Amino acid sequence: MPKNLINSLEWLSEPRIVCGLMTGTSLDGIDIAICSFSSAKDNHSFRLLAFNTFPFPSEIKNILKDIISRKRFIDDISLIHFALPKLFAQSIIQLCNDSSIKLTEIDAIGMHGQTVWHQPKQKEIANLRISSTSQLASGSALAKLIGIPVVYDFRAADIALGGEGAPLVPIFDYNFLKSKTENTICLNIGGISNITYLPKNCNTSDIIAFDTGPGNVWIDLIAKEFFNLDYDKNGNLARQGKVNSALLNKLKEISFVQWKPPKSTGRELFNKELLFRLINNITKFDAIATVTYFTAWSIAENIKSFLEPANRLIASGGGANNLFLMELLKKELPTINFAKSDDFGISSDAK
Amino acid sequence: MPKNLINSLEWLSEPRIVCGLMTGTSLDGIDIAICSFSSAKDNHSFRLLAFNTFPFPSEIKNILKDIISRKRFIDDISLIHFALPKLFAQSIIQLCNDSSIKLTEIDAIGMHGQTVWHQPKQKEIANLRISSTSQLASGSALAKLIGIPVVYDFRAADIALGGEGAPLVPIFDYNFLKSKTENTICLNIGGISNITYLPKNCNTSDIIAFDTGPGNVWIDLIAKEFFNLDYDKNGNLARQGKVNSALLNKLKEISFVQWKPPKSTGRELFNKELLFRLINNITKFDAIATVTYFTAWSIAENIKSFLEPANRLIASGGGANNLFLMELLKKELPTINFAKSDDFGISSDAK
Repeated sequence: MPKNLINSLEWLSEPRIVCGLMTGTSLDGIDIAICSFSSAKDNHSFRLLAFNTFPFPSEIKNILKDIISRKRFIDDISLIHFALPKLFAQSIIQLCNDSSIKLTEIDAIGMHGQTVWHQPKQKEIANLRISSTSQLASGSALAKLIGIPVVYDFRAADIALGGEGAPLVPIFDYNFLKSKTENTICLNIGGISNITYLPKNCNTSDIIAFDTGPGNVWIDLIAKEFFNLDYDKNGNLARQGKVNSALLNKLKEISFVQWKPPKSTGRELFNKELLFRLINNITKFDAIATVTYFTAWSIAENIKSFLEPANRLIASGGGANNLFLMELLKKELPTINFAKSDDFGISSDAK
Repeated sequence: MPKNLINSLEWLSEPRIVCGLMTGTSLDGIDIAICSFSSAKDNHSFRLLAFNTFPFPSEIKNILKDIISRKRFIDDISLIHFALPKLFAQSIIQLCNDSSIKLTEIDAIGMHGQTVWHQPKQKEIANLRISSTSQLASGSALAKLIGIPVVYDFRAADIALGGEGAPLVPIFDYNFLKSKTENTICLNIGGISNITYLPKNCNTSDIIAFDTGPGNVWIDLIAKEFFNLDYDKNGNLARQGKVNSALLNKLKEISFVQWKPPKSTGRELFNKELLFRLINNITKFDAIATVTYFTAWSIAENIKSFLEPANRLIASGGGANNLFLMELLKKELPTINFAKSDDFGISSDAK
């Protein structure tokens, strides 16, 4: 079967090995999962063969941060667009070597690319109303460098049609986490937190999916700036502080949390500048405690305001490992049963 | 036949109607050609059904100039990436209406996108050696907006493999302008000038193709800044001036002209800043005369230095309409027969 039939369902009728490449808004590196997929009728199943995270070289990470903070121009943006595919190719080859998978066994690569801008709210220009989203890393370049077909640019078509530009996670959640008997919330806490709501016995048209606000983005930022740590392991730092009500009230004024879904956001809004403008005269432990509480509150607030009552919540993403954050969230949502995606055979990190 | 076989030769075995979208470095607008193609064995032929140029709205043109001059950040780059597909879709629909072609008759769109950066020379970053190129306008967005498959991103794979990122024009020239008996130079004078050299009776491995340096880019710039005109019609402004030898000598020091092919360039080098740094104490007519002469000289210099003697030169692009420029070029290359691509049934503007 020719490789260019990769976008047909027929392609999945044979067992396939697919490599997924994700680089999230937290900029913590290149997550690579290699999975085998098989399908019988409407029933897809998969097995994780290998997974690892490859950190960005600090030079690349710093330029990425600068691009997102509107400090770099097209020359550097173009450079990174072609540097990332080289890093991705090297990392895939490394993971294959480490896990004794032959590169030639991989049928396709799914590459998200590094989001550097996401503006689903329309802006007016030249009498046009335009939403936009930008992910760096040239898919054509990666395909040539590694010799495997690359599927990429997942958000543009959805954005062009007026969507929020996040069409994939809900489809995954639907295929692998829906329940016949329980209203299910799939919560992914990456840099930003997002929810897929799957009413019991639902079909695809019943899916509700949106971003709730911050995930780890601000917690990581305080860990880095005040504690010189990459993240707050298990939430142990936040646990030592007290919620500062003045700061919390200011955070609660960020209107995104109250917006009606569908909605999506990113580092354009939840950035360093906004956070440090709000933080004043407060200990570093109280700062991380307050921001962790706000993160839990903003997730819970969205669930209470915009969803029908749910029986269970399935958490994934780096934030699912923050025990203190998860405790706070459980307190806010006492009637919901909590689980991790790992309980369903889906690695919370590799998801 | 499924639409996703569009990248196979089989697809061309049936007659096809294809729309080509070009937006050159001169930023003069959106060139759209609709052609019917048919093939018999290795012999491709086509007919131009409709052609027009749709100017950019000034707001878009100004932002594009700013992006290229490193004055705009990722937010505006992302915005333009999604504004252009909307403009492109509107313009295609307009051209179809004007020429009574049904949108549904178009089998595919080939979209080049607006080049905003082109750096085929490698730069080092994080111990990687990286070339890059960036064309704006999301192909996925255009495909969704207009409901026709879009083929795009023509340069990235070539750049990733260490090429100059300009693989298409030479293939076109080879298919439609090669000769059994004459060494042929196909010269395209857009914003930048490029050459395809086709030795007589050549096959694809004999093709030599590269950029020679400026085309209309600096002539247009002086027309705009000094005369408030979009371009120098027929070269009538330049004809009224005299070549200023001080300026000419400074221009001749730009080393790109002497570089050995393969090579390519763009507005990164031949920009407003460089030109106006060199222009001093000179009348506006002498300025445009000198820059026009330099443009002709740089094309001729490349032909004399790097190509075997040629019998004929086939000119295309907006610069082929600049009679004075073409006269200067003929004086520099007295042994070559000049023609325009129009003489071979290929519209010089629509090419």
